[in-house]
Amino acid sequence: MNSPKLNELDAWQAARLIAQRELRAVDLLHACLDRITERDDEVHAFAHLDRAHALVQANALDKGPVRGLLHGLPIGVKDLFDTIDFPTSYGSPVYGAHRPRADAASVALCREAGALVMGKTVTTEFAYFYPGATRNPHDLTRTPGGSSSGSAAAVADSMLPLALGTQTAGSVIRPAAYCGVVGYKPSSGRVPRAGIKSISEALDTPGGFGRCVRDVALLGAVLTGDARLSTSPDESAAPRIGLCRTPEWAYAEADTQRAWDTATAALTHVAPALADVALPDDVPDLVALQKEVMAFEMFRALSVERLHHRDQLSLQLQAQLDSGSVISGGTHAANLVRTERARHRIDTLFDQFDVLLAPSAAGEAPVGVDATGDPLFCRGWTLLGLPCVHLPFTRGSNGLPVGLQLVGRWGDDHRLLSSAQWIYDRLTQ
Amino acid sequence: MNSPKLNELDAWQAARLIAQRELRAVDLLHACLDRITERDDEVHAFAHLDRAHALVQANALDKGPVRGLLHGLPIGVKDLFDTIDFPTSYGSPVYGAHRPRADAASVALCREAGALVMGKTVTTEFAYFYPGATRNPHDLTRTPGGSSSGSAAAVADSMLPLALGTQTAGSVIRPAAYCGVVGYKPSSGRVPRAGIKSISEALDTPGGFGRCVRDVALLGAVLTGDARLSTSPDESAAPRIGLCRTPEWAYAEADTQRAWDTATAALTHVAPALADVALPDDVPDLVALQKEVMAFEMFRALSVERLHHRDQLSLQLQAQLDSGSVISGGTHAANLVRTERARHRIDTLFDQFDVLLAPSAAGEAPVGVDATGDPLFCRGWTLLGLPCVHLPFTRGSNGLPVGLQLVGRWGDDHRLLSSAQWIYDRLTQ
Repeated sequence: MNSPKLNELDAWQAARLIAQRELRAVDLLHACLDRITERDDEVHAFAHLDRAHALVQANALDKGPVRGLLHGLPIGVKDLFDTIDFPTSYGSPVYGAHRPRADAASVALCREAGALVMGKTVTTEFAYFYPGATRNPHDLTRTPGGSSSGSAAAVADSMLPLALGTQTAGSVIRPAAYCGVVGYKPSSGRVPRAGIKSISEALDTPGGFGRCVRDVALLGAVLTGDARLSTSPDESAAPRIGLCRTPEWAYAEADTQRAWDTATAALTHVAPALADVALPDDVPDLVALQKEVMAFEMFRALSVERLHHRDQLSLQLQAQLDSGSVISGGTHAANLVRTERARHRIDTLFDQFDVLLAPSAAGEAPVGVDATGDPLFCRGWTLLGLPCVHLPFTRGSNGLPVGLQLVGRWGDDHRLLSSAQWIYDRLTQ
Repeated sequence: MNSPKLNELDAWQAARLIAQRELRAVDLLHACLDRITERDDEVHAFAHLDRAHALVQANALDKGPVRGLLHGLPIGVKDLFDTIDFPTSYGSPVYGAHRPRADAASVALCREAGALVMGKTVTTEFAYFYPGATRNPHDLTRTPGGSSSGSAAAVADSMLPLALGTQTAGSVIRPAAYCGVVGYKPSSGRVPRAGIKSISEALDTPGGFGRCVRDVALLGAVLTGDARLSTSPDESAAPRIGLCRTPEWAYAEADTQRAWDTATAALTHVAPALADVALPDDVPDLVALQKEVMAFEMFRALSVERLHHRDQLSLQLQAQLDSGSVISGGTHAANLVRTERARHRIDTLFDQFDVLLAPSAAGEAPVGVDATGDPLFCRGWTLLGLPCVHLPFTRGSNGLPVGLQLVGRWGDDHRLLSSAQWIYDRLTQ
């Protein structure tokens, strides 16, 4: 079996065909490699690609028993994750062609499930704001978003069906929004971070990208070890949806406002338990809090880099580390306690709602590739550790993808993904 | 200045003398090295030691400006932390003489504060139960406890004043108790874990050892970035102390029961706000919960090791990983949610108490070096993420050290250490 469109198959479809031996992993891989040949000189999604090594992996998977949920699927791995068989640069010249001693635990889990690591995708410098070479595949003059730039772009451009990313401010949901793919940030603490370059203990969250909800659910099942995530959702009952514009709503551009109106209008007819919800008054300014927590922790997590390699850091990163250096440890301790209180307070909202609908980004991907856009609409949810899924379902005034995110209860990724599937089906019908 | 007892100086005293240029780092180092020469063939606290490299560091520190709170202090670093200038084996043949690309962030922070890394101390295999070579310096037929075996033993035996450790079950408090030193496990999330071998996302907590509360507070100030920890506590007011025997009290041996009676009798006279406190009835069995969370997460964090190096893992570790493999992801998700609820529930206890007094271990260090003792009395507090300090203040029936731990409110390490100082002064007067 071969087809020019194999690279456009959903991951779950490809996985099913491969598991039934109706599709060879090597054919899927060839289609993806062809697409990369065609496009990556312009998109620059990959930091490190090894075609021969990918073929060896694919052939071995075709010959061996079906290993798991991701058997035969080529995946992209953000270059923030350690890999034993690819250089790992963390988006910085400081690490050049560093060869880690072992795979990140999450990469090992994907391989155990049969995934084939096709290459390392571009990350911004240490997953902060200084961009890599990646362009938005929908418009090469625009940013793909960051920091998981290459992973989002590669999935959007059908170079591969699934890719790994991480979010500390808005690094999964924002690039998913800008590139028009589904992004999934699991609940904090559910995916092992071993072997992922750490920039913030409180905030770093591994996640991933696919072209539909079912695909990120497949990846999520492997990353969290929760097989329920990849099972078909209960289609019978409409989820209870809270409409949460968030305190940052004033920054939503016309495209996002239109997406909001489109989605809420469509859902009103089918989901009776739909209601506006505001964050409680006693919850602090989560965006400001997230920024301060991130600055303090980056200063400390990147101690080796700021102490010994400052001349190889971007001015942007240097400024961020400097801003973290002046926050006192007492302030940070108080910030962590305020964060815990806010998490507990917000948790009670989910007694009434299965998911919250919220903006993912201000609007379409901005023009320019010197910056990666603003994670404003993601910072609060990341701080709260809540699971999020970005749903792409419409286009903006320049024809670029626009969508919204769903936010779930902490720890209940199963319900979030079920609800997301239900809602996504209705928004994209 | 030189003295045969320099290696017995408290860290805070040595640091003050060095900062005032009344003591040279190199002289302190020589005293420590002499002690190591004298004792480490029997105690086996060190996995990797480099005398020449330590001398180079000490001389550089003596010549340069005073860098911070730990200037000139030799520290031991558990061989679970990455170091750029020492092999890092994580207590396993899998990693042999692995040379990490960079220091762990916490090690970099200690060096930034002027500490001199003297060597790597013995850890059990990947910080789990299979022991390393270290013996209890008080009785070489007994275990020093684990997993931070070498760090606790080295500090107890005056080989160095401070050492780094980590706790996932009871790996700081238990070896501190068995070796008779002060152990400090900070609140979860306050110390960056970047560059420390990860075995459990929910549980791994970096901490350290010293010979008095003030010393671990000095180290804690550097690790957390909270300068308040190293300031002298307010001596005026007695802390409000909750006496929490814990649900595991039936396992406390006579030596621990006597220590309990001694401490409570002494404190009754000076701390009026002293009251028994039980864990609330709606809090689940924290020990069972901690074990299940740990097994599930170890299975996933150590994926590379179980998939590719199983033949190099101890049977004990293999059994632990196997036990984690059969726990479902759904069970784990529920366990994480139960843990969060318990954390929130226990937090309210600290409206009434500044600290809880609780057992650290069942009794004296057990005879035998094929096991490291039971972390039973630590598992619950680790799961809750609460900051803990072990206070050594008496001896057991075989003359070995015995003490108790203090447990603080999450995030309020400052109050815990102040209270610990106050209580330690009264218990050791």
